[in-house]
Amino acid sequence: MTFDEARGMFPVLERLAYLNAGTFGPLSRATVAAMAELHDDELVAGRSSRAYFERGQELRAELRRRFAELVSVPAESVALTASTTDGCHVVLAGLGLGPDDEVITTTDEHFGLLGPLHASSARIVVVEPSAEAILGAITARTKLLAVSHVLWTTGRILPVHELRERSGLPILVDAAQAVGAIPVDAHGLDFLAIPGQKWLCGPDPTGALVVADPEALRVARPGSFSQAGYEPDGTFVPRAGAARFDTNWITHAALAGLEIALSQVPEWRFERAAVQADRLRALLGGRVEVMTAPEQATLVAFRPPAGRTAAELVARLVDDGVVVREIPGRELVRASVGWWTSDGDLERLVAGLG
Amino acid sequence: MTFDEARGMFPVLERLAYLNAGTFGPLSRATVAAMAELHDDELVAGRSSRAYFERGQELRAELRRRFAELVSVPAESVALTASTTDGCHVVLAGLGLGPDDEVITTTDEHFGLLGPLHASSARIVVVEPSAEAILGAITARTKLLAVSHVLWTTGRILPVHELRERSGLPILVDAAQAVGAIPVDAHGLDFLAIPGQKWLCGPDPTGALVVADPEALRVARPGSFSQAGYEPDGTFVPRAGAARFDTNWITHAALAGLEIALSQVPEWRFERAAVQADRLRALLGGRVEVMTAPEQATLVAFRPPAGRTAAELVARLVDDGVVVREIPGRELVRASVGWWTSDGDLERLVAGLG
Repeated sequence: MTFDEARGMFPVLERLAYLNAGTFGPLSRATVAAMAELHDDELVAGRSSRAYFERGQELRAELRRRFAELVSVPAESVALTASTTDGCHVVLAGLGLGPDDEVITTTDEHFGLLGPLHASSARIVVVEPSAEAILGAITARTKLLAVSHVLWTTGRILPVHELRERSGLPILVDAAQAVGAIPVDAHGLDFLAIPGQKWLCGPDPTGALVVADPEALRVARPGSFSQAGYEPDGTFVPRAGAARFDTNWITHAALAGLEIALSQVPEWRFERAAVQADRLRALLGGRVEVMTAPEQATLVAFRPPAGRTAAELVARLVDDGVVVREIPGRELVRASVGWWTSDGDLERLVAGLG
Repeated sequence: MTFDEARGMFPVLERLAYLNAGTFGPLSRATVAAMAELHDDELVAGRSSRAYFERGQELRAELRRRFAELVSVPAESVALTASTTDGCHVVLAGLGLGPDDEVITTTDEHFGLLGPLHASSARIVVVEPSAEAILGAITARTKLLAVSHVLWTTGRILPVHELRERSGLPILVDAAQAVGAIPVDAHGLDFLAIPGQKWLCGPDPTGALVVADPEALRVARPGSFSQAGYEPDGTFVPRAGAARFDTNWITHAALAGLEIALSQVPEWRFERAAVQADRLRALLGGRVEVMTAPEQATLVAFRPPAGRTAAELVARLVDDGVVVREIPGRELVRASVGWWTSDGDLERLVAGLG
């Protein structure tokens, strides 16, 4: 697949410098066509035939395999979820922590992780996003490290494997800005939550959760997909593997659309995305204060030029057909650079800084 | 809207005697067209503009109003969920019950309620589905009644308002087989979980949860929609009303499709569905053992003719273009009769009994 072929899959790129995959990735023609085909089938044939339910099971199995391959774990370790948040809730609710337990997180986490952490009723210890600060905060009460692989604020990469190894503690990794953007190896990590609709360019809402040891986590939110048999009081036999943590029905259209999105990726995607992110840093360097260090992931955050707020700049860039976002409370503008991003997209952003 | 006009909205009815809205309702042309339109917009314009997010908020507000109107509660009492199961989990996780608490349920509940009950860690007391049995099982430890409004097994209606009033206990009502099938008034009920994809003919997965007193239930699964502001440790200010319990992002296509499905209903729907359900009972009466009593809801369950299993009969009926389902473990066949069901559909089912 050439760059032009890859880019040509996404109609939104014809008109816009679309630099917001950190919120939602671009959708490809094939993904939307697959969704339309499934919906048209359901319109005419209904949603109840044996073939219909078998198709759903096949799509789920295929997606589990693809997510597993993507992050180098067995398919038996993959649950299908509706979002990163959804996966984080499965883990936190399942661990059954209490007020005497501590979880260490960082100052730069998204509410998709913070909400589940707060709901756990554990004491949440918030430290600077560095390995030393995280490891330095460990006490005898620490039960979990819960951090992003790539910070949504600045794109900084945290050394999650090193944290796991040096701490010896279970780790929950929010991989919302990592999987699909940079190579991610979930081997050795306890829990990894993945969105389908960001860097993987899938339909919303979709996602996956890696659970390294499914037997060791309580199924806190059992649904039809969790059980292989149940009693009248709800006691159930969990399905084998992480499939027991599947959080809900996912419409066949989204399953099929995500399957297409995961299969239609160029081999060179990570290299290209990294080159383009570095290129954007270089282009911005002389003009604004860039908050993202060299050789991080595919998010590039910067302060707006003097005299302009982040919100104003984001709104003004929209008029130039440039789609980026503000990081609330930080006065930062964040651009998401993907394997589909052209030099022209980056130049439009830089030109729009005014 | 005439009956022919109403029926004409659903292409699946042209070919099949589709009698399985208790699993998934038929989809209308307009619902699928609305989904396709939204996906096509996202393909070209992306999923990140201000207009895009405002559209989502408007669709959510509109759906809240429609669900509220449907079950006679204020819109502030309605959360948007992905399914009945999803809503039941919100309630059970939020109540924070423990092993010393008891919840009373019936022998005829779906795993969509039983799974959340089991996960609550309360003691689940299972009794026959009658008001006397349920009320008779109450002890000083009983914290909740959790029952279906309409049993998924036989279509029997339980007197949920009477149970609430006579017990004085909070009640969680699984309304999966009720809302859209019969008139439902959620006033006076504490919690009511509604699916969008069954009798309301919406896209899957969609649903709503009525929470009469949102302030009194903990937000056990906070996500982006739950909060109006948060701290670095995840402490958050809940949004006003039941919107704080919204469980996840719902794709705009599903929101728009459901909005169309909820708006395109004939005034005569409940009367017509009741008449057709009675008609099916009468047609089946002389030929098989009908398990559904007169004047219940829109599910009609019956034993297959002697010498045939329920699974065999369901499979054989498919060959005749008749879609019904088996109730596992009960040796029952269940037909779902909707306001769109014709006399011809019912006659095809009866003819297929062989």
